[in-house]
Amino acid sequence: MTVKLGANRYGKAETRLVQVVRQGPVHHVKDVSVSTSLSGDMEAVHLTGDNATVLPTDTQKNTVYAFARRHGVGQIEAFALRLARHFVASQRSIHHARVEIEEYGWNRTGPHSFVRDGGEVRTCVVHHDEDGRSTVVSGLKDLVVMNSTGSEFHGYIVDEYTTLEPTTDRILATAVAAQWRHSDAGSDYGTAYAEVRRCLLDAFAGTHSLSLQQTLYAMGERALTACPEICEVRLAMPNKHHFPVDLSPFGLDNDNEVFFAADRPYGLIEGGVLREDAPDAGFAWE
Amino acid sequence: MTVKLGANRYGKAETRLVQVVRQGPVHHVKDVSVSTSLSGDMEAVHLTGDNATVLPTDTQKNTVYAFARRHGVGQIEAFALRLARHFVASQRSIHHARVEIEEYGWNRTGPHSFVRDGGEVRTCVVHHDEDGRSTVVSGLKDLVVMNSTGSEFHGYIVDEYTTLEPTTDRILATAVAAQWRHSDAGSDYGTAYAEVRRCLLDAFAGTHSLSLQQTLYAMGERALTACPEICEVRLAMPNKHHFPVDLSPFGLDNDNEVFFAADRPYGLIEGGVLREDAPDAGFAWE
Amino acid sequence: MTVKLGANRYGKAETRLVQVVRQGPVHHVKDVSVSTSLSGDMEAVHLTGDNATVLPTDTQKNTVYAFARRHGVGQIEAFALRLARHFVASQRSIHHARVEIEEYGWNRTGPHSFVRDGGEVRTCVVHHDEDGRSTVVSGLKDLVVMNSTGSEFHGYIVDEYTTLEPTTDRILATAVAAQWRHSDAGSDYGTAYAEVRRCLLDAFAGTHSLSLQQTLYAMGERALTACPEICEVRLAMPNKHHFPVDLSPFGLDNDNEVFFAADRPYGLIEGGVLREDAPDAGFAWE
Amino acid sequence: MTVKLGANRYGKAETRLVQVVRQGPVHHVKDVSVSTSLSGDMEAVHLTGDNATVLPTDTQKNTVYAFARRHGVGQIEAFALRLARHFVASQRSIHHARVEIEEYGWNRTGPHSFVRDGGEVRTCVVHHDEDGRSTVVSGLKDLVVMNSTGSEFHGYIVDEYTTLEPTTDRILATAVAAQWRHSDAGSDYGTAYAEVRRCLLDAFAGTHSLSLQQTLYAMGERALTACPEICEVRLAMPNKHHFPVDLSPFGLDNDNEVFFAADRPYGLIEGGVLREDAPDAGFAWE
Repeated sequence: MTVKLGANRYGKAETRLVQVVRQGPVHHVKDVSVSTSLSGDMEAVHLTGDNATVLPTDTQKNTVYAFARRHGVGQIEAFALRLARHFVASQRSIHHARVEIEEYGWNRTGPHSFVRDGGEVRTCVVHHDEDGRSTVVSGLKDLVVMNSTGSEFHGYIVDEYTTLEPTTDRILATAVAAQWRHSDAGSDYGTAYAEVRRCLLDAFAGTHSLSLQQTLYAMGERALTACPEICEVRLAMPNKHHFPVDLSPFGLDNDNEVFFAADRPYGLIEGGVLREDAPDAGFAWE
Repeated sequence: MTVKLGANRYGKAETRLVQVVRQGPVHHVKDVSVSTSLSGDMEAVHLTGDNATVLPTDTQKNTVYAFARRHGVGQIEAFALRLARHFVASQRSIHHARVEIEEYGWNRTGPHSFVRDGGEVRTCVVHHDEDGRSTVVSGLKDLVVMNSTGSEFHGYIVDEYTTLEPTTDRILATAVAAQWRHSDAGSDYGTAYAEVRRCLLDAFAGTHSLSLQQTLYAMGERALTACPEICEVRLAMPNKHHFPVDLSPFGLDNDNEVFFAADRPYGLIEGGVLREDAPDAGFAWE
Repeated sequence: MTVKLGANRYGKAETRLVQVVRQGPVHHVKDVSVSTSLSGDMEAVHLTGDNATVLPTDTQKNTVYAFARRHGVGQIEAFALRLARHFVASQRSIHHARVEIEEYGWNRTGPHSFVRDGGEVRTCVVHHDEDGRSTVVSGLKDLVVMNSTGSEFHGYIVDEYTTLEPTTDRILATAVAAQWRHSDAGSDYGTAYAEVRRCLLDAFAGTHSLSLQQTLYAMGERALTACPEICEVRLAMPNKHHFPVDLSPFGLDNDNEVFFAADRPYGLIEGGVLREDAPDAGFAWE
Repeated sequence: MTVKLGANRYGKAETRLVQVVRQGPVHHVKDVSVSTSLSGDMEAVHLTGDNATVLPTDTQKNTVYAFARRHGVGQIEAFALRLARHFVASQRSIHHARVEIEEYGWNRTGPHSFVRDGGEVRTCVVHHDEDGRSTVVSGLKDLVVMNSTGSEFHGYIVDEYTTLEPTTDRILATAVAAQWRHSDAGSDYGTAYAEVRRCLLDAFAGTHSLSLQQTLYAMGERALTACPEICEVRLAMPNKHHFPVDLSPFGLDNDNEVFFAADRPYGLIEGGVLREDAPDAGFAWE
């Protein structure tokens, strides 16, 4: 039997970094989790344990902290690109770098005081390779939204395993995980983030929904329409079921007022929307 | 050997209830998790499996949903009291009820659209017994706050296991879990919640801290001063350590700018503040 | 208004310690999480931030590691007692110490190779005070068990909110959290742990159950009967509901064969069993 | 601007199913979580909310339960294939089905009594499309293993951000997530599972490691050598760092005896091993 090494990568995951930036007595904080991942000439380390081409994950972590001090974190996409380019440029054995960052929000309560914004997490995934190609995917996750009406579901396939009743009024609730691909590395990432987030919320609230898929598509389309610098949006949206409780045994009606919020199972709707002329994604989504 | 039954209780935990209240096209949502727990004449069920005194946990769950429809949820403390009183009043075998509720916040994005406020969770624990005694403890948890300066720590005991260096400037970060006891069952719970929350945030931000204990006490004292209807505050606050990264190996200084946010271990500071004349707590904290 | 400091304590939580003990080429591992908590003369630190009576949580952590090296971990109860006694004995300002330890099991796969036993976690909570009193509570948690038959539930109270049908055959599943109090500090903790665990499993499997309370009591009683050195057992057991799926719409019967395993809500049964002549618990359960 | 629908799929996630199989008084349990995901003619539902091609996720869930009753669960790969083939065969609009199953183990403690094996979870991902192509990937996750010696790390790249000291003796600990692709749909999945698991444990324990990559490759190679019916193994292995505690401030040495088990950050090593003549993977890994 002959076997060979397949695709591989290695790195340091979830380096937790908080940066405090001082403007006199007023402070600003950046709170991120950085995961770096490298690949390249890694045959020897897998086959014989020869580490000569390996930049240790500990060093990757150190680089994250040193770069935060030297350059600041700033927009997470730019910080990720800076790190990815450094790893590829500085080591001949490293052909490709992937950097993923999560950012946690804080709201100001004083000049140097903050309360954690426990809502959605901002994300990015950046790739850079030895041929100079860079891709940037921005995103958010854990944005939990609900419409208490304005959602229907009917007209679906009925087969021998169907028991679901059609409805013209239901709760629609989901936790949005969205990622959007930038056509080029160089967008104004912060502005785009705010704009996409607004589009997602507006389209969710503003779409009279016949299916969660329709809402998902409307959200992606809205973001693409508003943000010329992005070319593709991918969404994963669980259908967090809210079932009206049958109160008739207790002599009570329940006109979509009292719901049981179920944990599992849940629907899971995943889909992408992209421009007709979107450039090839390459390794952007890996 | 002779053994006997000790303290016991049973109930339904984490009944997930979402109520939609309609004011014409404008909807309001209440999103709660209700845990009920009963005790009383329960010797037989433990010793022989005779369930004659047992109100099933399934029935407790049904009661939660039916009461939401019949009376509305409203302030969680009032809803919990209503449930607790019902269980004790309606069944001779039930001598005591404990009801615990968590409430999850939602912010409006449209007439019937909402985004989950992922920050702190509002809580309450209510007791009621067959002698008509009621206690109400309100609270919040997962309120994550940070001061990026204005915190010192020095002057502590030094022993043979001490390696910590004293500091006059550190990050102070914690996840506040606070509970406050009402002197009587009948406060304006919603107003008190907003007021205590504001006090906790203000005192955290406004206290130049020499120890997390000092900050904790200031937070409790502030709430008691502002809210005459509460008589005791208990706080549990992990010291979420942020360690400045040593960047000197890379020729960089680090004047409290770049931090490693550690997960474990963490300090854990727990303490209570109460009025000199606080009435006896009874079973309030059980 | 006059307020005062109430009950308080502080410490280092979840210090993660792995100790490797070598017997020539054969290694043994102890994998624990240690939480220490101290109380005493703590007025000043709360009121003014004067830390003169405070043994820093960082020092508590260092002590845990140093004691592991100096004395070994051994039985977690004995290690916890050693730590608690040290803190109280070495600092005049510390009047009381509480030490809680969790231990994670590993099974051997080679002389120095192990696979994590992902089942239950062994626990203990130890107290020691300046008057020389010590209490030891041992335990386990996350011991998930199931009987696929041999469980009934009927004869319960029926009220206006009852919809549950009585049953003479159901799945009984739970995650056992058990704690047992030792009459004296000085038991053979490891032997007792194995014996109590065996009793809990045997009584769960061997009890034809008319209610989860009956099963709980039988488990506690069995442990007390087998282990003379313990005087009280407390158990918390969620009723992890398994609902038979209604397959009749598909022309299929379902004679307790296919179940939906629900997450929430769940029943929660809590109760204690103790010897008639059990000594006073003091602060053992705090 | 013109936008279009990209890749999409939808389904029911985490349908929790427990099946009890009776052999007289002796029972057997299968405890699984099933996630189904379908794709096909889904333009209309996304663009206009027309559900005519949509088999509701509720129906998918029902199908899972009905198939468990009708055919039994058996080996999870076979059950997943059966479901996937059904969805594609029964609906013209469904062109592709992906079914993912997790299985949780239970150990027998009596004829109808079981204790949850809290260790690794068995997994599979199966695809089937309208052209009759099927792929089967089996796996496991959360298999946590440790070598307390026999691991070195040195000879790596040293750059300006390097502070790590080389070592010839360290703890190597990881949580193995492994997936193996079957050359054809029709293996003896249960036997292969046991064999691969044994190979992974043996190779982990038996490899004197110069890098986690070397260990990873040895594990994959061992499995491929032992199991002719699989053609590719992919592994993701976090390097769960255990750092020796510096006890020198306390006058104690620490010869790899007392370790701090860190949570984050962690190394993350991902890699594949495959046969030279492995057939094309197609959509197996999606």
